[in-house]
Order: sequence, then C-alpha cells, then structure tokens
Amino acid sequence: MKQSKLFTKTRKEAPADEVSKNAELLIRGGFINKEMAGVYSFLPLGLRVMNKISNIVREEMNSIGGQEVKMTVLQDPEPWIKSGRWSDDVVDNWFKTKLKNETELGLAFTHEEALTEMLKNHINSYKDLPIYPYQIQAKFRNEARAKSGVMRGREFLMKDMYSFSKNEEEHLAFYEEAKKAYKKIYDRCGIGHLTYVTFASGGSFSKYSHEFQTLTGAGEDLIYVDEESGIAVNQEVLNDEVLTSLNLSREKLVEHKAVEVGNIFTLGTKYSEPLELNFKDEDGKEQKVFMGSYGIGVTRLLGTIVEVLSDDKGIIWPKEVSPFHVHLISLGENEKANELYESLQKEGIDVLFDDREANAGEKFADSDLLGIPMRIVVSKRSLEEGGYEIKSRTEEKGKIVNSDELLKELKDYVFKTL
Amino acid sequence: MKQSKLFTKTRKEAPADEVSKNAELLIRGGFINKEMAGVYSFLPLGLRVMNKISNIVREEMNSIGGQEVKMTVLQDPEPWIKSGRWSDDVVDNWFKTKLKNETELGLAFTHEEALTEMLKNHINSYKDLPIYPYQIQAKFRNEARAKSGVMRGREFLMKDMYSFSKNEEEHLAFYEEAKKAYKKIYDRCGIGHLTYVTFASGGSFSKYSHEFQTLTGAGEDLIYVDEESGIAVNQEVLNDEVLTSLNLSREKLVEHKAVEVGNIFTLGTKYSEPLELNFKDEDGKEQKVFMGSYGIGVTRLLGTIVEVLSDDKGIIWPKEVSPFHVHLISLGENEKANELYESLQKEGIDVLFDDREANAGEKFADSDLLGIPMRIVVSKRSLEEGGYEIKSRTEEKGKIVNSDELLKELKDYVFKTL
Repeated sequence: MKQSKLFTKTRKEAPADEVSKNAELLIRGGFINKEMAGVYSFLPLGLRVMNKISNIVREEMNSIGGQEVKMTVLQDPEPWIKSGRWSDDVVDNWFKTKLKNETELGLAFTHEEALTEMLKNHINSYKDLPIYPYQIQAKFRNEARAKSGVMRGREFLMKDMYSFSKNEEEHLAFYEEAKKAYKKIYDRCGIGHLTYVTFASGGSFSKYSHEFQTLTGAGEDLIYVDEESGIAVNQEVLNDEVLTSLNLSREKLVEHKAVEVGNIFTLGTKYSEPLELNFKDEDGKEQKVFMGSYGIGVTRLLGTIVEVLSDDKGIIWPKEVSPFHVHLISLGENEKANELYESLQKEGIDVLFDDREANAGEKFADSDLLGIPMRIVVSKRSLEEGGYEIKSRTEEKGKIVNSDELLKELKDYVFKTL
Repeated sequence: MKQSKLFTKTRKEAPADEVSKNAELLIRGGFINKEMAGVYSFLPLGLRVMNKISNIVREEMNSIGGQEVKMTVLQDPEPWIKSGRWSDDVVDNWFKTKLKNETELGLAFTHEEALTEMLKNHINSYKDLPIYPYQIQAKFRNEARAKSGVMRGREFLMKDMYSFSKNEEEHLAFYEEAKKAYKKIYDRCGIGHLTYVTFASGGSFSKYSHEFQTLTGAGEDLIYVDEESGIAVNQEVLNDEVLTSLNLSREKLVEHKAVEVGNIFTLGTKYSEPLELNFKDEDGKEQKVFMGSYGIGVTRLLGTIVEVLSDDKGIIWPKEVSPFHVHLISLGENEKANELYESLQKEGIDVLFDDREANAGEKFADSDLLGIPMRIVVSKRSLEEGGYEIKSRTEEKGKIVNSDELLKELKDYVFKTL
C-alpha cells in the first residue's frame, strides 16, 4: 500500500487523558482511535495487526479440532438466570439494555451460557462428542476504571473456545492439547519468551486453572516464576500446599508483574447441569456433558505485544503480526523505488511504501513509530552506493545490497516460518 | 471437511415461532441458531457463507479505494447530540446502556457520527481527500417487531462505507463508481438478475438516493419497475414529477414487493457541518467536507439469497457464497470416496464430505437442504457404472463420469470466474 493513500496520519502526542503506553503508541501511529476510556476503534493499520493475530489464533484452534462460530452480543436473560450469573450482584461488569417491550437484555461478556443452550439442539448421543466450538467475537465488560489502553477494554475482541466432552478423561486430553496450541500462539506473536504457564485458582472441578501470563510492568497481576522449570504461580494460589504439590521451593521464585494473555479452565458440569446439556452414553444412560473454556483476549494480546516490544522510538512488531512485512521508503523522487514496490508485491511480499513528499527525518521517525520490522531505503545515495539500504527495526545501521541480494534476503525473511 | 465431524445437525422442523422462510431453512440446515426474535448466531456452515459474502463485499470496496476499519459498538453520546440523532424521539430504534457512573451510551445502529468525529484527527488539507473508509461490523437496531429472520435483525452484520470528498463533483464521480461496485456484488452473490437500482428519496443535498432492491414476496418495500430501462422507483417517490424527470411512463411500470439489499446516499455536509469536519483548500480557506454513505446489510443479503434461491427441498447457494464448492457423498463404505476427498482438497477445492453412517435417502435430503451447488456421489453402483455421479443442485438427474472427467469438470466449475 502507498502511504500517501493511507488516510491515517501519525501524531507527535497522544490525547492527554491516555495514560497507557500501548494506547499512546497505537494512537500516535494511527493504529487505533480512542472513542472513550476503554473503547477503541481500529484504523487500517491496527485492523491489519488485529486480523493477523486473529488468524494465528484461528489456525491454531482449527489445528486442534476447533469449529468456528459467531454467537451474538445481545443475550437473552433466561440461560443466565438458570446458571446464576444474570444478577448484577453476582457479575458486576454487565452492560444491560432493553427491548422496546422493556425486556432486559445483556451484552455478552462471555458465552458459556449461550453455547451450552445452543448445543442442546445438536448434542444427543455420545457419538456427537467431543466437540470444540470457538469464536473470535466482540465482548463487553463494564469496567469501573479502564486505564490500561487496549489491554483492558470495555469493548474488546476475544477468542473463546469451549470444549464439550463425554467425561473428565477425554476433557483432560484436550486440555493438554489446548495448552500446547496456546504456547504456539504466543511464540508466533513474538512474546513466547516472556509468557509463562501460570497455576491459578480452579473451581469445583479442578484444583487449578492455567493462565498464560506475560511479564510486563503494565500488568495487573503478580506472579511467582521458577525459572528452572518455567512454571509460574499466581499470587492468588501461592501457599505452601500448592508449592509442595507443584514441587517448587519458595526461595527460588521470582516475583513479577504480568498480564494474563490467556486462560484455560476446567468447567466440568457447572453449566451443563443447570442448563441440562445431556447426552446418552453407550448404554443409553443420560449423562451430563463435561466442559472446559479457553480464552484469549485478542485485543489484549495486541496491546501486550506493543507494551513489551517497543522502544523509545515506537513499536517493534514481530514478523507474523506486523501490518506489513516491509516498510519501503523512498527519499526524493526516484523511479527505482516505484519499480521495487511493484516487484516486491508481485513476489507476494506485503509492502507499505512511503512515497510521500516528506524529508528523511520525518520518514524515519514515522517508520520507527509504526514498527514494521524490516525497512528498505531507496535514495540517490543508496543507488550510488550500489542499490538499496536494508535494516531491521532493531538494528542501528543498515547495509547496502543490490537488487538480487535484496530479493533473496526479503524472501528468506518473509517466507521462512518459525 | 468431514460431515461426521461437523457439530451441527440438520432438523426436520424449525422452531414453531419462526415465521420467515430464510430463517426456517437456515435453522433446519444448522447454519444459524435463533437466540431470540431478530437475534441469530452463526454456526460453522452459516459463518462460512457470511465470510464468503463479506469477502466479496470487501474485494469490491477495496477495488474502488476503500480502506477497512472497525469502529466500536459502544457510542459516546456527544457527537450524536451534535448531529441531533441522540434523542429517542428522533431515532426510535436505539439500544442504550450505561457505564457504572450512569453515563448513557448507545449501541451503534450506524457510524456517520463516529467516523466524522474520528477523521478530525486525520483530515487537515485538500491533500488528505478524497478518502473512503469502510467497515464490516455488527450493528444494533431495536426493532419493535422482528419477523423477517436474518433479513431484519436486531443485531446484524453490515458493511458501511463513507466517502469524504472535497466537493460535490468529486463526490458524484465516486458515487457512480460505488454504484458499479454494488452491481458487481449482487451479481457475484447470484441475485443480480433480481436486483434493481431504485430511485428513493434523497435529502437536503440530493433529490434521490439509490437503493438496490431485490424482488421477493418476503420484502417489505413496494417498488415500480420499468423492465425496458431496468430502472425502478420506490413507492415513496412515485409521483408525476419524478416519473417525468426519469423519463418513465406510469403504464409501463410493474409493481413488485422487494427487499432493500443496499443503498447509497449523498450526505453532503449534513454531518461535517455540526461536527466541524473541515479541510483547508488550495487557497488555505476552510471548507466543509462533502460526504456520502454506502450501506449493505451483509446478514440481510444472506437472508435474501436464501429467500429467492431455494426450492421446496432447501437452499440453492450460488457458487461464490456456498459454504463449500462441492458436496461429496459416499454411500456405503468405500475407499474410493476417501481417496477422492483427499485429492479434491489437494486441488484447492473446498469439499464437504458426507462420510456419515446414514442411508441414501437421509444423505440426499440433507444435501438438498444444505444447498451446496455441486454434488458428487460415490457408491458401489456408481463405481460399477464407471466412476462418480455428478449433479448440480438444480438438475433432476446426474451423470456418471470417470475420475479424469470429474476433476476437469470440477476445476472448470470452481475456478472459472463469472
């Protein structure tokens, strides 16, 4: 895409009321727009990143048998009343609204009830299980304060998968598969090295749930990491009994602030029982479906990437989630930059081409702010020196390569998978 | 995809309270689930169709310079108060909700105000215009009655594009481009032959707006079609002055019920004036941005396709929006069907493979209900007769072809564009 056509502009300053680093950088780069506290729209560059993250999540969910659906924002109270989660005294972050006839509706903050209710039309027999529906869908939470940018929104994009199994054994086998898929997602999103599987409180059906916590000072959680084993424990379950059962010693644990970028949870029959989601087993006996839930806040993940992968000049996108593979910058008018833009596109390389009339300083500052991980400069000087300057976002200095070398290097970079 | 793995099941009957044909067929086929009147979730097959339609719309919007964004559902009242559309007396189908601090918010039924407000951060000069942001996003309308299935939802998916131009002339040139892009969309969605550009009432800045109306008895509009010119007029502007100006004679017009599957509208400065979206022209003078809006209800389009392209056995999807290219059905156990499934997938053909243990009658009835336009049957009989039976959804009888013929025919069918 030609940057002269992109309707968004970079800004020197974020709005004065924006206190989070992720939203500040994303607003300054023109990735998002702040509609109000905790509510951000996604502009072309931001939507590209969001879609790339969503597609990584989608691929990994499909690879473990997920089937994508899209549930609704508007929620009928009935199944929530049955599960005991309709009351504002029980769930304190509902947004509610009303039909013309005064019937109260909720805006979904999660979808256990809706999925469970819907599946009563599709599950009858043990032959229909296990199944793993998931969606990537807007969620709404009426946060009293929303000061963490896109890391804690009132409206945000979330992947939520739910597993429906015949029994606990079948459930646990899938639970382990999900854990592996989650690890792949954080690796592909470039924050795997900072992300720990963290033991957190479970529920009636399991001693623990598992959170995926990414280390960052901007996080709202406290976790305790055992570097040797790579295991972490959320503050909420840090006690001697837990440490013993996990074979951890308190002295070796290091405290970190962290943000929860995902969680997996054994639900058991918590929802299938009140909502009566049953199946007939091989002996024709009615059994309750055994459930699990698996969440990833896609918007939060995006915010976390910005929070942990940036420097004082701007964002540093990991390759797989960058809005474009390559940032091509022309300095001064030159036909060579146009030709290169055309030929890179033909190779299937996504290029943002800074063809604007602006000086080198502005262009480099914008490029650093936008954070596309690979930069190519075409200028009179580079051409005199033999070609094109190529530099990664994290390198101080680039190098000059000729067009064959450039193409080879870029193709290796773009199409070489992790 | 193997049908034995698909978690949805077909049903003989839709819910008793469902009165629209589109929702009845979509529910029976397992494409959607009714959450409440006018609120439908999309299950794997339905989401596939929705995504295919969305992608057609996206491609055509990108081809005329559209830049995709995603605005938010939650709406700050302020710009709506400025435009005069916040009050429930002016707009009678708002859903409203509240923050914890009692601030009222709206759920977006459209996005003129939000886009206009947002663009104040990105438009300064005539050099920044024209631009065409669009989104494909959930919209919410508090309909008093919702009895038309997915053709009139309380929560629905909509593509809305907005044009921001320097003046009326620039606006009108784009308006004509948008009209052509819309025609392509309806052609690709298989309902072009039933869809008419229809003159409807305009506003302060234009005598007319243009609706795209698809003929169907399930529609809620009355239009008057001149078959010779292909022009139609909405009942709301049917008068002698309009007929004269369009060079139409009343006697030749034929009345039809129809559903509005899209509209394009000249807004002029209706929103840029109260929201103060200005730009500096070439002489440095402040000017108001000249706007247009361009809507397509994606969910409504999906419902309309079902409504007009179905028979007493079920849906008949047009090729480009069908959830799969081909429905492969095996009768009895046979290795040949498995082999064919694998080899078609390798060719890039999307196959739903009915590998279930069920009898021929059930499988054929489900296949007709699901409406994938091309069916292949592999059975002991077909193999004895020389290969595979291929039949389109609308043909009474299929024919037997060998594997080379089958592959050639399918590749021609799938990859030959309109």
